[in-house]
Order: sequence, then structure tokens, then C-alpha cells
Amino acid sequence: MSEKIRVGVYGAAGYAGQDMVELLLKHPQVELVFATSSTSAGENVPYTNLRYIPAEDASLSEADLVVLALPHGASAVTAKEALDKGVRVIDLSADMRLDTPESYKEWYGLDHPHPELLEAPYGLPEINRDKLHNLDKVAVPGCYPTTTLLGLYPLLQMDVLDSTAPIIVDAKSGVTGAGRTPKANTHFVTVHDNLTPYKTGRKHRHVGEIEQEIAKITPTHGTLVFVPHLLPVSRGLMASIYVTLNHRITSDKVHSLYTNHYADEPLVKVLPLGVDAELRDAVLTNHCAISITPVTDNLVHITSVTDNLRKGTASQAIQCFNLMYGFEETLSLI
Amino acid sequence: MSEKIRVGVYGAAGYAGQDMVELLLKHPQVELVFATSSTSAGENVPYTNLRYIPAEDASLSEADLVVLALPHGASAVTAKEALDKGVRVIDLSADMRLDTPESYKEWYGLDHPHPELLEAPYGLPEINRDKLHNLDKVAVPGCYPTTTLLGLYPLLQMDVLDSTAPIIVDAKSGVTGAGRTPKANTHFVTVHDNLTPYKTGRKHRHVGEIEQEIAKITPTHGTLVFVPHLLPVSRGLMASIYVTLNHRITSDKVHSLYTNHYADEPLVKVLPLGVDAELRDAVLTNHCAISITPVTDNLVHITSVTDNLRKGTASQAIQCFNLMYGFEETLSLI
Amino acid sequence: MSEKIRVGVYGAAGYAGQDMVELLLKHPQVELVFATSSTSAGENVPYTNLRYIPAEDASLSEADLVVLALPHGASAVTAKEALDKGVRVIDLSADMRLDTPESYKEWYGLDHPHPELLEAPYGLPEINRDKLHNLDKVAVPGCYPTTTLLGLYPLLQMDVLDSTAPIIVDAKSGVTGAGRTPKANTHFVTVHDNLTPYKTGRKHRHVGEIEQEIAKITPTHGTLVFVPHLLPVSRGLMASIYVTLNHRITSDKVHSLYTNHYADEPLVKVLPLGVDAELRDAVLTNHCAISITPVTDNLVHITSVTDNLRKGTASQAIQCFNLMYGFEETLSLI
Amino acid sequence: MSEKIRVGVYGAAGYAGQDMVELLLKHPQVELVFATSSTSAGENVPYTNLRYIPAEDASLSEADLVVLALPHGASAVTAKEALDKGVRVIDLSADMRLDTPESYKEWYGLDHPHPELLEAPYGLPEINRDKLHNLDKVAVPGCYPTTTLLGLYPLLQMDVLDSTAPIIVDAKSGVTGAGRTPKANTHFVTVHDNLTPYKTGRKHRHVGEIEQEIAKITPTHGTLVFVPHLLPVSRGLMASIYVTLNHRITSDKVHSLYTNHYADEPLVKVLPLGVDAELRDAVLTNHCAISITPVTDNLVHITSVTDNLRKGTASQAIQCFNLMYGFEETLSLI
Repeated sequence: MSEKIRVGVYGAAGYAGQDMVELLLKHPQVELVFATSSTSAGENVPYTNLRYIPAEDASLSEADLVVLALPHGASAVTAKEALDKGVRVIDLSADMRLDTPESYKEWYGLDHPHPELLEAPYGLPEINRDKLHNLDKVAVPGCYPTTTLLGLYPLLQMDVLDSTAPIIVDAKSGVTGAGRTPKANTHFVTVHDNLTPYKTGRKHRHVGEIEQEIAKITPTHGTLVFVPHLLPVSRGLMASIYVTLNHRITSDKVHSLYTNHYADEPLVKVLPLGVDAELRDAVLTNHCAISITPVTDNLVHITSVTDNLRKGTASQAIQCFNLMYGFEETLSLI
Repeated sequence: MSEKIRVGVYGAAGYAGQDMVELLLKHPQVELVFATSSTSAGENVPYTNLRYIPAEDASLSEADLVVLALPHGASAVTAKEALDKGVRVIDLSADMRLDTPESYKEWYGLDHPHPELLEAPYGLPEINRDKLHNLDKVAVPGCYPTTTLLGLYPLLQMDVLDSTAPIIVDAKSGVTGAGRTPKANTHFVTVHDNLTPYKTGRKHRHVGEIEQEIAKITPTHGTLVFVPHLLPVSRGLMASIYVTLNHRITSDKVHSLYTNHYADEPLVKVLPLGVDAELRDAVLTNHCAISITPVTDNLVHITSVTDNLRKGTASQAIQCFNLMYGFEETLSLI
Repeated sequence: MSEKIRVGVYGAAGYAGQDMVELLLKHPQVELVFATSSTSAGENVPYTNLRYIPAEDASLSEADLVVLALPHGASAVTAKEALDKGVRVIDLSADMRLDTPESYKEWYGLDHPHPELLEAPYGLPEINRDKLHNLDKVAVPGCYPTTTLLGLYPLLQMDVLDSTAPIIVDAKSGVTGAGRTPKANTHFVTVHDNLTPYKTGRKHRHVGEIEQEIAKITPTHGTLVFVPHLLPVSRGLMASIYVTLNHRITSDKVHSLYTNHYADEPLVKVLPLGVDAELRDAVLTNHCAISITPVTDNLVHITSVTDNLRKGTASQAIQCFNLMYGFEETLSLI
Repeated sequence: MSEKIRVGVYGAAGYAGQDMVELLLKHPQVELVFATSSTSAGENVPYTNLRYIPAEDASLSEADLVVLALPHGASAVTAKEALDKGVRVIDLSADMRLDTPESYKEWYGLDHPHPELLEAPYGLPEINRDKLHNLDKVAVPGCYPTTTLLGLYPLLQMDVLDSTAPIIVDAKSGVTGAGRTPKANTHFVTVHDNLTPYKTGRKHRHVGEIEQEIAKITPTHGTLVFVPHLLPVSRGLMASIYVTLNHRITSDKVHSLYTNHYADEPLVKVLPLGVDAELRDAVLTNHCAISITPVTDNLVHITSVTDNLRKGTASQAIQCFNLMYGFEETLSLI
């Protein structure tokens, strides 16, 4: 029997970090060796005998792989250090997602500290599986990009979207997506009984990431219009997608296109025609659920939902982990 | 000093009926004479000395005007009876909103019991004010149509939308919009921590009503794509609108178009450029709040919010009431 | 290797039934053979290839054991039928919990259809473990009794409560406790933003059950004052307990009494002194969490929390199941 | 016609301050002259043409009275300054509520900066009305004390509580009670789907305030046991009270004692026997609602609810204001 992979988690007390730890603990091939947190250092890591330690106390030599649930900017620095010591890296931040330092600068306002990291593949297995085997580093996509791209992928791959029409994504996210640091916009009284659009249009940083990945599949594509909203729930992300088809397909064919395309994907569920995906179809699961509504001959509405901390982050990281080490991709996930 | 208008409310214990009663009680020119409810008959009407009575016990001769917060189908029957006795009618149901019996049959599946009622004007004062003076009957618009039409109106009126592009409305409603009768889809456990699209595409009955009113302003218009969602809140309605402009305007002009258009409308607030309307901007108020985001030169995102029971129903009914009797339109509303 | 136990679940589409099915599916020694539901017959049972069937279509001969998540009254009838055919029974209803037909009549207003079933032991393992081995039937306690009794048990067992002082339990339950049938009191708009006491004082049916079990441990005990409230959450139950000690103990000893008492109970967590149990300490877990606050020398406040559908129902049923068949008690639970 | 009273509000952008401003704007005898806020300085004060100003820019000479919605400690300093300039003061903080500097030091850990302010009367009109006329300063009670004391008052005044038995108050508060500053314990994800006891037993600062006022009515009284909980709602406060009667009364007399006692109090509603007060009975109202449950001959359960920002703070401040100036006590409140 093989030895377990020793995994350390940075930023382990944040919402994504917590789900990451929880999923790693269920993985039969993983031994959790440390979990860092600046704010929770000294406290018990739930379900373990470990305590959170400050990042500077983590010993990279104890780990075979680290998962980085750190803020962008900080993540790249730790990633570089780990890789230099031969420790593999799964990065949950944005620091390896964009392909060029120019794009990183445009969307994050920073000079990338280690541009060579940007060659890391984009860890969305249902789209990019072939590039994710036996790697030393992977960039796990954001929750909005995962949910949006899975909702669009069969149409993009078949190149059946009208490239002159916009791709409209009205997205809604639970509050864990906004992070654990207390702020005015995550105060209970602000969020409860409310619904708040933010960074509307093309202002959200994930616009750059989503368009980059769309362009890899369909170089000629419509403009992404992306309007995220903060929902009064803790978990869950819904991308409500509105697209126009080109002459190569009619809307009545789209549902079967999706069911066929995703037939062998255990972590994508295409709902029966006439059943709309609701948030609860994905919350606390590891999969993405998708429903298709043909509206007119050339207009299609797609609802794509994930748990932002699971298929939107930590479950997807486990998929990548399994691919990196040659395990069954869904090991411990289904 | 003039005598007060004697008003009776049918269906007064439903959510819309309750807000209607509450607003009527604050109106200086109104005397509430009865409030009917089949399920709450005998119980006290909040803030009054009245008790709910069965509809069949209501005496139309005691009223100068009745407000009907009844199910469609039933409402028309009572409306006819009242009008025949010279009692004016404000109808909150769908029974007077559509212009033809064919359209009513198409969207509601019923032969209209009294098609002559369909001549009632559509009670959206910001669009239709001139037709609402001194009437004996008015059809108060639904909450989705009100919020959507106010969000679109300046663009429609100026005829600056690309008539070949769809008008996309991703709408979200609080649960009072689904009525007070307990059903599986309004059970707390179903709604809480969830977000549910329903009647997606062009299935919702309000599609017919919205398109009818759009066509009156802009006969040549794009297809309405309308996707409502049930939000885990009690009150509030958000219409997130995505439209494509024609060559006659660029998106940077739209915000000033709206501020100018609505400058003298006390019950429509256009927010400053860069500030997005959130649900709370309208909940428990009598107004509609609107924000504009230019996305590209010819794409505009509009967020329009109302309280579904106020500007989406009861406050608008009061506006109509005031116009019917020649009072200041916003009397008791601001 | 032994064959799996074949288990059928009646009332499997209710909230308790759903959690029951979910936990049974994770149990390595269980094969789920059928799941009945009158309202969901024909629909898919989540996570399985089964469909819900009407209870009358269930074949008892296919099962070694049935779990009854049925209304009281109905449950006893199915239990009798199963036992007569040699099928073991775990009853989640109240039909086997009370010890006498008189008591059943008093609290449930019905003549018990099969009084011989009342000899079934009370399935609260942390109190009653010795009586739960190798049985053919067991009555799983209600969620309020479980949470209350575990919160009181060390004090009752040591007989250190002032028997002249009341035992005050201010309890709060999530809405799944009220069942899945849509009713006015479980409508989202009724529950949300609200907190509702109900059956206050000694009116709730669980008063009889709790006092019966208290009396078995401490025949001379104070009056139970029990005030349940409906909380605007889906899951979770908190019993806030206020008791007066007799002269045999002072309040500063109570925390160590509890930590010692429950030291070997894997499904009861006594929190450190100074840390209060909150609802989230138990939601979606299989355990009960308890905190102790000494208030004055002889007054103690205890907070006891469970997930009403887990340790309050389905997890506890699994504990009983394991004891009935001689498996490790916490098999599949920790 | 008399001139309006010129009122300034300090700390006007906090939750209490916002409700205070809203109620003052509705008061026919009030002119709002300034509203201070350190965090919102420069922003518009809702429903007004004013902007929030920093406290140091407020000109006391422009005001006849100031309302202080400031943190304890800070409030006393501004109160002193205002009073020295002949400006009357309504203090919403704790700085004038306790009767002695020793008590203030005990509960707030500070030497009181101006102990002479502690002579201010306790502004709970239903108990203390006679002392509230024509004053220059008043201490408005906290929300927990108001709700608890109104729930207990008729029993205290009649001296019918068993002074050897504890007065148990299990209290539940909405999150606005925890203030507007973002903290870990008010983050949406922390509060939502949760219920959290805090400062259990006798640790909460309001214990000192409540016992002080109880002792003024009934010098010999039982120990107060006070367990507050944070509820996942924005507004509303419920005090669930459990008391033991002495031999002078039986529990069946308590409901009529309350209905008689509060018969002429417009802002206290005693519900009919058998109807339990729920949170919604008070939210967004100016009154306290109370229900009584006789449990045994000498045990009574009382549920008392208020809106923590209204009768628990701002409405009560308006009552005090009206008494200070000789207006009808409920002017602008009913």
C-alpha cells in the first residue's frame, strides 16, 4: 500500500480553507500535516488534532503538496517558495489563473511577483482535463468562472453562439464568497432581507478570467456582460446565462447537446428539460447542476449552480489533486 | 370640507390586501368601510375596529369604491357587480390588465367572464397618467410589469432600443409575491437558503402583460426574455434588465436620459451613476429605484427595484385612487 | 462477510425520512430495499436508483427491519404488521414512546391501537443503552426530549436537583421540526424574521415524554416547564435549561460532573467552561453539544443543542440500529 | 403656533441613531438641526436634506435638545458639554442609567467621567412617568431592560413574586442590537442559520441595570438569571420570563392583573389569554406586546416583545421627549 500524500493548507481558517480541510480529511490518500491561519493561530482545526499555525511556522519540508487559500499577491510568493523546494502547489487564489502579467496587472492592479507561475494550467477538469495530469502546480478557477464556463462549455465547444451577440451572465452568490473578514457589506443586517448587485457590467475581476477561458475555446465570441449579486444565503452560486445561437443550431437541440456532452461527467448534472436548476441542487454537493430553457429559436437561457466552496473551489481542487497524482478523479468526491 | 370616500377591500387578508388596508388607513380622504376574507372572516382587521367579513356579506351600497385583491377570474365577477351598482373599482388582479379576451384566454386559460372590463386603463401613472383621471375602474399592473416597465420606459419612449435584440429581464421576487396560501413552494424549508427560477423564458403570465404595454410605446421591439426567481426574503422585487441600444444613442447617454425623464416623478428614484440599486432601496417604500450601468457602447444594464406589495401593488393603487378622485397623486404616499 | 441488513423506510420523503435514508445509505451494513411516500410516490429517492412507492405497495417480506417515519397513530398499525411478520421495527413516531395507553391517550388524544407496543424500550442510548441490545423494536425519542434529557441527565442521575424547584426548559427548534406539510405556520413569510413560542407551559406533547423519562431516573423531581419556540432556521434545536441544585452539590462542580459523565460518549460533546453551545455546534452533525454556566451557588444554566433531524431523530435511530444488531454503536456516525 | 424644538442627534448613522432620526422627522414639534457620524460624515441623512457631520462640527448653540446615540463613556462627555450650555439631553447610552459611579464602574469598567449625570431619571414612562416631566436630561433604558421590566412590572409592583426564587429571563435579540460596526459575531455567515447565547448567567451589563430598577420597586427580590441570545433576524427582542409567585396570588389571576394594569397604556399590549406574543407582534411598532401563560398554580411564563430599536430605544426616547416638553406622551407614536 502506498504512503499517503502529505498536504499542508495555507489560509485554512477562511471559508474556502475550511472546506478544503474538511474534504482533504475525507480523502483516503491524504495526510493533513499543517493548516495555517494568521487570525486563528492556536485554535483547534475542526475534526483534527492539529492547531492552526502562523504561515511562517509552517515547514514546507513536511509537505508533498500545499493548497494555498491565500489572498492574491500573497499566494504567488508562497507558491514560488514551495515549488522551489519541490513541493507541489494547488492555488485557490487568482495568482496563477491569468495567462499573462499584463492581464494580471489589468485586473488585480499589481505587478505579478513571479510571472513564471502564470504557465500553470487552469484547473477546470471538465474542460481542461488533458492538461492536468502529473503536474507540480495548478490554478483552481474562481467560483464564478467555474459555474459560468460549465454552463457555457458545450455551446462554446460546438461554436454555435452568435459571436455578435453578448453573453449575458446574471450571477448570484452566497456570502461565503465574500470572505470571512468582517466588513460593512457582509454585516448580517446589510445582507439579510436584501439582494445587492455589485461590480456590474464588466468591472468584476472574474470577467478577465472568464473571457480568457472562453477565448481559448471560441476565439471569436460575444462580449461578456457579467452582473454579480450578493444573495442572503451563506453558500451557493447561480449563474443565469442568456445567449444567442448562430445559424448552426436551434434552441430545441441545446438540451440534448448538454446531456450528451456531460453524459460521462460525474460532477456535472444536466437536469431534465422543464426542470430549472435551483440553488439547493448544488449546495453542500461536489457537483454543478445545469438546466436549459429554449426561449425562442435562437435564444437560450441556462441556469448553472454550484456550491461556491465546493465545485466552485475545494471539490474542484480535490479533482485537480487526484489528477495530479493519478488517482481516480472523483476519489472521495462521490 | 368634503366627505371621505368610502372604500371596501375584497381579499383584504392576503399580503396585497393587508398592505392595501394599511395604506388606505393612512389616507386622509378614505374611510374603510369593510374588508372581506374567506379564510380570516371574524378576525380583527389590524389597526382597525373592523372584522373581516365573508365577501358575500359585504354591502356594495356602503362603498363608493372597492379594491379587489382577489384571484383572477373571481375578481372580474365582483368588479362587474360593483360597477353595475355605480361603485368604482380598483382591481389588483389580472382581470382588467390585458386588452383582449383572446390575450386573457392565452395567458390565463379562461374565457373572460366580462370582456367589457378589459377597456379599463392600465394603472401605471408614470406611463399612463393622462388616462387615469376621474375613472370608474382601473387595472393596477402586476409587480413584475411595474418594475420592468419603469426600468425600460425612457428607452422605449425614445425608441432607442435595437428592435432585433432581445429584452432580457432576470427578475427576483420576495415570497409575498407568491401569495399567502400555504404551498410546498412557499414552505420555509423550501425557500430558505435557496434561490429558485420558475416559469423561465416566456412562460410566466406577466410576459403577456409586459409585452402588451411595451408594444403600446414601441410597436417594433425585441423579444422579451423573462426569468423570474423566488428569493429567500419576504418583500421586494428586482428586475435586472439587459438591453441593446440602436444607433440613435450610446450607452453613456442613458443615465442622463433617465434622470431627466424621471426628474419630476416623486415615486421613481434614479440612483447616481456608479451606485447600484439594491433590494433594500425599495422595500417598505412607495417608490421604484433604478440604477443604470453602461456596459459597452450599445449594451446597458438596468436594475429596477420596488416593494412588490407597495409600488408593485398597493401604493400604485393609491396613486390611481388619487388620480380617480382628483387628489394630489402622491397624497398619503410621500 | 455477513450479508447486509435489508431496511425499508416508511414516510421516507418527510424531513426525518429523508435524513434517515441519507444516513442508511452511508451505513456499510445496510441495504435500502424500499422507501414509501404517499405524496412523492413515483419520484426518485435522492442518491439512489429507487423510487418512492405507496406504503401499500411495500413488501414487508423483503425487509429485515423497517424504520417508521409516519404520523402517530398510523405508525403503530404498520409496526404491528411488521412485527407480526418477524420484521424488526425502529419507530420515529410517538407510538411506542409512552409507557401506558393512558398516557398515550392523555397526550395524543387517541386510544392506542396496539398497547402491547408500548413495552418497546426508549431508544436514547446514552441513558438507556443496556436495554437496547438485540431487540425487535425500539421507540426513538423525539427531538425535544433527546436534547433536554441529555442536557439534564448527569444532574438527574446524581439526584442533585432541588425537587421542589421547577425544571425550566426554554426550547427553540428549526422549521423541519414542524414537518413538510405546508401550513400557515410554516409559510416562509410567517416564519422568516420572526420567533414564535407555541404550546407554552405544559401543553406540548413532549412534556409527557420528558417527564416520564425524568421520573425513571429521579422519581422525585420538580415540575417541568417547557416553552418551545419556532426559529427562522431549517435545522437545529436548542434546549436552554434552568435548574436549581439541592444541598448535595454546588454549581461550580457541575461542569466537571458533565465532562466526567460524558467522557466516553462519542456523540455528546461537553464544551469548555465559558464557551456557550450555539446552534451551529450541532447542525448537520450526529452529536449533542452541551455547555454549562454556573449562575449562583445553586442555579445552573445548561444549553443543549442537537440537529433535530440527526441526533434528534435519524442519527439516534442509527445508534439504536447498531445496538439492535450488535454493531459498533457509532458505526457510520463518526 | 409654537416654534419647533430644534434637535440634534449624535451617532445618527448607527442603527439606533437611524431610527431616532426617522422618528424625529415624523414628529410635528421637532426640527432636526444636525446629525453627527464619524464614519458617515458627508453622506446624506436619509429622508432629509442634511448631511452627516463629524461630532466636532456640531454646534450645540443651534439645538434646544440633543439625542446621544454614542458609545458609553463618550456619551457622558457630550452630555456634560450640552447641559453646561443649557441644551437638554436624551441619552440612549448607558452613561446615565446606573445610579452610582460604583455600579457604573462595576458593569462598564470605567470611572464615570461626570458622576453628577447619574441623577438623571430612568426614562421608562410606564414605570417612571411621574419623574419625567419638564426635565433637562433623561437616561433612556436599554432594550433588554425595557422589555424585561415591562414584562415583570405588574408582578413587581404588587409584590407577588416569591423573593426566594430566581427571576429567569431567556432573552433573544435581533442583530441590530449588536451595533453597526462589522465584527466576527455579526458577519452574515456567523449569524445566519444559527442561534447564539452570550454573556450567559449574570455577565451581561444589563443585569446591573435591570436589578437596580427591580430593586426600586421590590427591594426584596429573587436573583436575576439572564441569558441573552443572538437571533438570525435584524430587529426585535423577546424576553421569555419564568417566575414563581408567592402565596398572595395564584397564576390564574396574573393575566387579568396585567390587562388591568396596562389598560390605559397605549404602548403596551397585553394579548388575550392563550395567544403567545411572537416577535412580529412588535417589530416595526412602537409598543411592547406581552403574553401570559399560567403554568402551575405558582409558576408563570411571560413573553414580552419589543422592537429593540423602537420601544427598546428610539420610540421610548420620543415618549421621554414628549414628557420633557409637556406634549402628549404618544405624540407621533400612535
